[in-house]
Amino acid sequence: MKHDVIDAQISPDGRLEVLSRQEVGKLLDSSQGGLYQTFRNCALAVLNCGSAMDDGKELLERYPDFEIRVVQEQRGIKLRLKNAPAQAFVDGVMIKGINEHLFAVVRDIIYADNEINHNPHFELETSSGISNAVFHILRNANILRPMTNPKLVVCWGGHSISRKEYDYSKLVGHELGLRGLDICTGCGPGAMKGPMKGATIGHAKQRIKNGQYLGITEPGIIAAESPNPIVNDLVILPDIEKRLEAFVRTGHGVVVFPGGAGTAEEILYILGILLHPDNKDMPFPLIFSGPDSAKAYFEQIDNFISATLGSEAQRRYQIIIDDPGQVAREMQAGISQVRAFRKHHGDAYYFNWQLKIDPVFQEPFNPTHVNMKTLALHKDQDKHLLAANLRRAFSGIVTGNVKDSGIRAIEQYGHFEIHGDSHIMTLMDTLLASFVAQHRMKLPGKKYSPCYRIIA
Amino acid sequence: MKHDVIDAQISPDGRLEVLSRQEVGKLLDSSQGGLYQTFRNCALAVLNCGSAMDDGKELLERYPDFEIRVVQEQRGIKLRLKNAPAQAFVDGVMIKGINEHLFAVVRDIIYADNEINHNPHFELETSSGISNAVFHILRNANILRPMTNPKLVVCWGGHSISRKEYDYSKLVGHELGLRGLDICTGCGPGAMKGPMKGATIGHAKQRIKNGQYLGITEPGIIAAESPNPIVNDLVILPDIEKRLEAFVRTGHGVVVFPGGAGTAEEILYILGILLHPDNKDMPFPLIFSGPDSAKAYFEQIDNFISATLGSEAQRRYQIIIDDPGQVAREMQAGISQVRAFRKHHGDAYYFNWQLKIDPVFQEPFNPTHVNMKTLALHKDQDKHLLAANLRRAFSGIVTGNVKDSGIRAIEQYGHFEIHGDSHIMTLMDTLLASFVAQHRMKLPGKKYSPCYRIIA
Amino acid sequence: MKHDVIDAQISPDGRLEVLSRQEVGKLLDSSQGGLYQTFRNCALAVLNCGSAMDDGKELLERYPDFEIRVVQEQRGIKLRLKNAPAQAFVDGVMIKGINEHLFAVVRDIIYADNEINHNPHFELETSSGISNAVFHILRNANILRPMTNPKLVVCWGGHSISRKEYDYSKLVGHELGLRGLDICTGCGPGAMKGPMKGATIGHAKQRIKNGQYLGITEPGIIAAESPNPIVNDLVILPDIEKRLEAFVRTGHGVVVFPGGAGTAEEILYILGILLHPDNKDMPFPLIFSGPDSAKAYFEQIDNFISATLGSEAQRRYQIIIDDPGQVAREMQAGISQVRAFRKHHGDAYYFNWQLKIDPVFQEPFNPTHVNMKTLALHKDQDKHLLAANLRRAFSGIVTGNVKDSGIRAIEQYGHFEIHGDSHIMTLMDTLLASFVAQHRMKLPGKKYSPCYRIIA
Amino acid sequence: MKHDVIDAQISPDGRLEVLSRQEVGKLLDSSQGGLYQTFRNCALAVLNCGSAMDDGKELLERYPDFEIRVVQEQRGIKLRLKNAPAQAFVDGVMIKGINEHLFAVVRDIIYADNEINHNPHFELETSSGISNAVFHILRNANILRPMTNPKLVVCWGGHSISRKEYDYSKLVGHELGLRGLDICTGCGPGAMKGPMKGATIGHAKQRIKNGQYLGITEPGIIAAESPNPIVNDLVILPDIEKRLEAFVRTGHGVVVFPGGAGTAEEILYILGILLHPDNKDMPFPLIFSGPDSAKAYFEQIDNFISATLGSEAQRRYQIIIDDPGQVAREMQAGISQVRAFRKHHGDAYYFNWQLKIDPVFQEPFNPTHVNMKTLALHKDQDKHLLAANLRRAFSGIVTGNVKDSGIRAIEQYGHFEIHGDSHIMTLMDTLLASFVAQHRMKLPGKKYSPCYRIIA
Repeated sequence: MKHDVIDAQISPDGRLEVLSRQEVGKLLDSSQGGLYQTFRNCALAVLNCGSAMDDGKELLERYPDFEIRVVQEQRGIKLRLKNAPAQAFVDGVMIKGINEHLFAVVRDIIYADNEINHNPHFELETSSGISNAVFHILRNANILRPMTNPKLVVCWGGHSISRKEYDYSKLVGHELGLRGLDICTGCGPGAMKGPMKGATIGHAKQRIKNGQYLGITEPGIIAAESPNPIVNDLVILPDIEKRLEAFVRTGHGVVVFPGGAGTAEEILYILGILLHPDNKDMPFPLIFSGPDSAKAYFEQIDNFISATLGSEAQRRYQIIIDDPGQVAREMQAGISQVRAFRKHHGDAYYFNWQLKIDPVFQEPFNPTHVNMKTLALHKDQDKHLLAANLRRAFSGIVTGNVKDSGIRAIEQYGHFEIHGDSHIMTLMDTLLASFVAQHRMKLPGKKYSPCYRIIA
Repeated sequence: MKHDVIDAQISPDGRLEVLSRQEVGKLLDSSQGGLYQTFRNCALAVLNCGSAMDDGKELLERYPDFEIRVVQEQRGIKLRLKNAPAQAFVDGVMIKGINEHLFAVVRDIIYADNEINHNPHFELETSSGISNAVFHILRNANILRPMTNPKLVVCWGGHSISRKEYDYSKLVGHELGLRGLDICTGCGPGAMKGPMKGATIGHAKQRIKNGQYLGITEPGIIAAESPNPIVNDLVILPDIEKRLEAFVRTGHGVVVFPGGAGTAEEILYILGILLHPDNKDMPFPLIFSGPDSAKAYFEQIDNFISATLGSEAQRRYQIIIDDPGQVAREMQAGISQVRAFRKHHGDAYYFNWQLKIDPVFQEPFNPTHVNMKTLALHKDQDKHLLAANLRRAFSGIVTGNVKDSGIRAIEQYGHFEIHGDSHIMTLMDTLLASFVAQHRMKLPGKKYSPCYRIIA
Repeated sequence: MKHDVIDAQISPDGRLEVLSRQEVGKLLDSSQGGLYQTFRNCALAVLNCGSAMDDGKELLERYPDFEIRVVQEQRGIKLRLKNAPAQAFVDGVMIKGINEHLFAVVRDIIYADNEINHNPHFELETSSGISNAVFHILRNANILRPMTNPKLVVCWGGHSISRKEYDYSKLVGHELGLRGLDICTGCGPGAMKGPMKGATIGHAKQRIKNGQYLGITEPGIIAAESPNPIVNDLVILPDIEKRLEAFVRTGHGVVVFPGGAGTAEEILYILGILLHPDNKDMPFPLIFSGPDSAKAYFEQIDNFISATLGSEAQRRYQIIIDDPGQVAREMQAGISQVRAFRKHHGDAYYFNWQLKIDPVFQEPFNPTHVNMKTLALHKDQDKHLLAANLRRAFSGIVTGNVKDSGIRAIEQYGHFEIHGDSHIMTLMDTLLASFVAQHRMKLPGKKYSPCYRIIA
Repeated sequence: MKHDVIDAQISPDGRLEVLSRQEVGKLLDSSQGGLYQTFRNCALAVLNCGSAMDDGKELLERYPDFEIRVVQEQRGIKLRLKNAPAQAFVDGVMIKGINEHLFAVVRDIIYADNEINHNPHFELETSSGISNAVFHILRNANILRPMTNPKLVVCWGGHSISRKEYDYSKLVGHELGLRGLDICTGCGPGAMKGPMKGATIGHAKQRIKNGQYLGITEPGIIAAESPNPIVNDLVILPDIEKRLEAFVRTGHGVVVFPGGAGTAEEILYILGILLHPDNKDMPFPLIFSGPDSAKAYFEQIDNFISATLGSEAQRRYQIIIDDPGQVAREMQAGISQVRAFRKHHGDAYYFNWQLKIDPVFQEPFNPTHVNMKTLALHKDQDKHLLAANLRRAFSGIVTGNVKDSGIRAIEQYGHFEIHGDSHIMTLMDTLLASFVAQHRMKLPGKKYSPCYRIIA
């Protein structure tokens, strides 16, 4: 099948970028130390928005002739594209939102390379060094806005969900938007798009013109979950762990919709952190919600958490079924507590410095076959360590499902083998099987063949 | 059944209003010459937004204790509301869009009374005088915007349509919005809301922050079709004929979705005008469109037009089935012609002065039982006169269906009797019967009992 | 001497205007009932800005070939100018501020004709009718801004003042601007320009981007005192009395700098009004101020007021010599009282409805030779009536000095004769003689020959 | 003499700053590696604005108890000041412009330390590395604005000039402002303030609300030439050489008003650079201008250039006496050429990458007594090297005149001795003597005692 492509030259329209000669050179440099490959692949992902595809490898193979070049002109930089996916254009003109996303890619890739990676100011081997890097990347992307009250709701959930669940996520977004709350998601379709759409309508009704629709992604996942053009703040963190940290330090609360392995990863991440004793008294509204039809789904999740992390973890969230207004009201109430807490401690509204994140949740996890096989998935460890390791297990499955690198590794070496306590393994197997059965692993269309094998 | 109500005091938030002491006095004056009744009823209609109701009489009866008062304070005027419908509020705070609508009501009612009605400058008995009044009302409402290119698409269609038709109208709105086009409708639900919702998302993707969602209404219809809060420009014309004139002089093209009697009225109005010899060369894009399921519907409309107004009328529109992108592209092409035409003639982009409107389409038609009975519905007259009279017939049916005054008249005196040539009457009967069968006359929920009887 | 002229076509740049066909027709109509003459003369005055001329007659004679036409184009109206004064242009392009002023002329002339003059809603023969008309004209010109705190300082004073006095008025403006206060003057050079310049710098330092520099004028005086381009809100009232009413109803306090007959007129106007018993408790900050060198000047004014209106009038103002900071602080303190008073009474901040203005200050005074001769300038009347008549005497002298109509009348019929009590006449003669001696009557350059004769 | 001081807490009002915990820590750190001293001294300089003082040492001694602290609060950072100069406040509230300047100080000091000084990405020992650092500092300060046409005019000239010269610089600024040009100066009074004031009025007349008044300074000079509050873009470069490079890479043309040693330094800098063969064809408008009274002054400068750098250097500038309009027109014409040149070469409008700057003009020159004594001031070298060394000589004299470090060095070690060819030394002596005679070295008030001795 041939996919329509377009050549184009675009200017930075929303956000203007000024690059030095050296920076332009780096982006054009396709050698080992250069940035061209990452830049090209992220740009392609951004352009692929709107297509029903969640396969990083397939994307790269679908547009082998795609090229992108930065050119310096008298009024600033421009981007020259060859063989770009046609769906990014309307009647030959690129959608502005996507145009902005491309320049966000430029900005974040340059910044990470220039001012983070080899700058001795950032001690990336320490916990505080990592947090500091996350802070700087977000600040450089203009995400951290002082002088505003807490109002950013992170929405997690699957990219592959039912129509009913999708409509429900829109209704929740609508209710959040009517209350002036903003939305942050991981980009992509499904539960990451619905709340933004709903909030857009809610904001329109409330005449909120500067509503924020923040998408937080990373170079590995972006190809599978390309940002929808409503996203008006896009930031690309260097890896999945920094992306997760960005969610929980900038967001003021989290709503979790139904999803698959990625959603499970996110749930384990936030619960693992909230279990840390230092975070005991910190308010952090966390709501699991879906339509009627999702009731059983959340019971299953709840059971899994109960059996692995216990009741202490269960106390950190509430489950609300089929009541978008209630979700919004509870979130607003929770955020009021966040605001009071930060004000009391003089902590910034725009970045949750006080949240303690254990290094096990910060260190980049590389889901090789060996690393997956040797994950410590047993109960003889602290709850937050178990959460961290379970998080890694699900993270690896996401990689095997949708990321280019993961798909290739599975093709080459076969299934990930996941070992652990038989009780935990059984629970995990059941959970994953239900994700498969409910088409939550991959977008419908192709038969899903699991990338993992649970060995109890 | 008891309906929730709220007391509130609101300030003009979006658009600020400054009133003279005399004007405040008029709005508070509930005597014969005063404006209180009209003001109260329109305000109530605005507040009723979002309820599934299209019955002007029922609305007034549902909130008998509703009161509204203008108060002058040091920073400007405020409105004090008692027993206002609760659905206009979110957690006790009025939705901003509705807040704006209330002040638009104040503005337009004051203006019509103060500067139009008894001002000898406006010769309301002449055709040019009526057009001039429409111009002044729109200008006062800040609707006429110089220095912008033509981009306002009027969307007509029923308030009571199927889910599929509604979703389709959203898709069309999305495609129009992606192309930077704005939306104008008659307010209300269904085909008057869908395109605005779609365009809101399209505009968000294109980072268009000043998209216009213009609602044009009049005091009789507003109660049955209250403006949805996305409408960010609301204007209330004094009567249905000036409202129709406002549509065709400000809009640069029209999309007609499926609908009932009101939609038929609108189709006959625009075709009747376009049939005038003076308008022969004037470009005016007119597209009938709907999903697959609406194919038969538009064939029937097309047949009715063919049989009554003939092929000359048929040449003024095209029918596009199930292709939102094509609708948008055709509309954009049509508007380009409008632009070229106006530029060539030095005619304003924001008000179509050159469109010739025969006085028969401007004179207010009062659908009393007598007037309805004596409509000249025969072929022995000019096509545009037949169109004018058919328009009146459908207008009367709308009144009997949903307007407070009409419903009361039907209750008191029985059906409207509509006489005419048997051929025309048969066609009309069939058309109306199909509207009834397809639930296009009234919102679903109650059995529709016709307010008319066709007598061939 | 030949004066440079330029032909040009200009578009409304700052404020956009939309006119009806009828309105365009009126502006083009040079017949008796048409508006062309007034429009042309006001436009010429606006264009003449920056020239050292204060002679309405000379202006009209200097540019006999000046023409201006409104043309309707697709994007709105434009103005075509022939033989326009070259000083309104920089390198052939009209200064934007002047461009705006021209469209303000269009707006106000149309509005006064269309919606005020023959509209029965405005009972111009009554006091409240006149105030209502002033309100409507100001509202139409967007001068009345709700939701803002009181901060508009009216600066009165001569158009012909010394360099030292001019620099002092700039310093006062600077101090007012640093405190966030806005400036309103009667347009023109001297004390009407200095405070605006100073405030512009003060506002720049305080990053106030929407500082208001309001110029209030009328068709007779504009030619002699054309608005300087800093004026960013220009409004043309129909006559001098409505202009004066506009000053005192929109301004929140007044600073009077040294000046001539016009300044004396303004002082008598405000004091006459403040003497009304109904205004007894109303705060109204009124400060006379100038540099060291103006000390004697204000003593003379103070004596004149003492001798004519008495100590009650003297209590309404304070004299501050050579202390711009103190002027600003006192003004700010006075405006705080105005704010508290309005808040307490729920009276609008943007229009002083409560200020009682006796009809003798509202009725247009036509300074014919007969009317001037028969002014009642004696002490056998209420203080406020004496103030009103003295106001008229000075008003007539201004007319004879600088207005086209007045200069022609003096040329034709000789001096105005002014009769009255010998004591008052002596005081007046002395005061006027000092104005002449100090070159306050007319701009320096030509010998001033008085237009009046005082007959004791 | 006691100087009034005020304690205050201020929030970032114009530009919002978000700091990391580490950055706040650095600003509070008064130890060797910390930033507190530089931060405090620059902040004090900013607050001292408006005082007639040009002595960096005196400033620091005048406010020994001044303290400033950054505090982190929930909405962002604040600054707490103790014993701050009272002239930065109006009625106890800090002038917004100065408020902004304080946060610019925070921004630039943090950035230089954090991301420039020890970041291996910046090779500060190379010419391109220095230019890259200048670029990054300016970009971080939001000075580099793509998508705008060239319009930034650098105005150089003395801080201590006559009233007549000052008024003239205002007139030139007014003419530049009327033509939509922006102003860049080195901050401080005199010729660095006049053009901004004039342009502010010119911009107001042209309704330009985003006029740029850019001040470029460095930590050594800021105390002697504190930015006036009109400056709405302030950037602090690390040293005088980077400051000079910032001027010539961001500005699109230069006007030189009369001045003293600093102005001579600037003239030699720009001419030295323009003499480089690589810059031969590059348009760079350079105009020397002053009122009538400055004619002799510029003849003297012209002679000095002629005798040292020769006619090739003379060809790069024009001298315009007493004609502000002509200066503006010539500058505009010159900038048109700059624009065409950049467009032709695809070089950025906002940063003149192509201008070749020899490393001798980039290396920081430390004017110790030894370095001053050993400057090579003879004709046996390339013209541009002679220019570079002469530049250093004048730069040292500025340091000895007004900078804290320089004044202390002179107090301790006596005069700088300046050796060189007798012809050059004689010319230089005459030039400097005339600067002294004309009070151009220091603000009037104290007797100037030279910090140098010319030894022929």
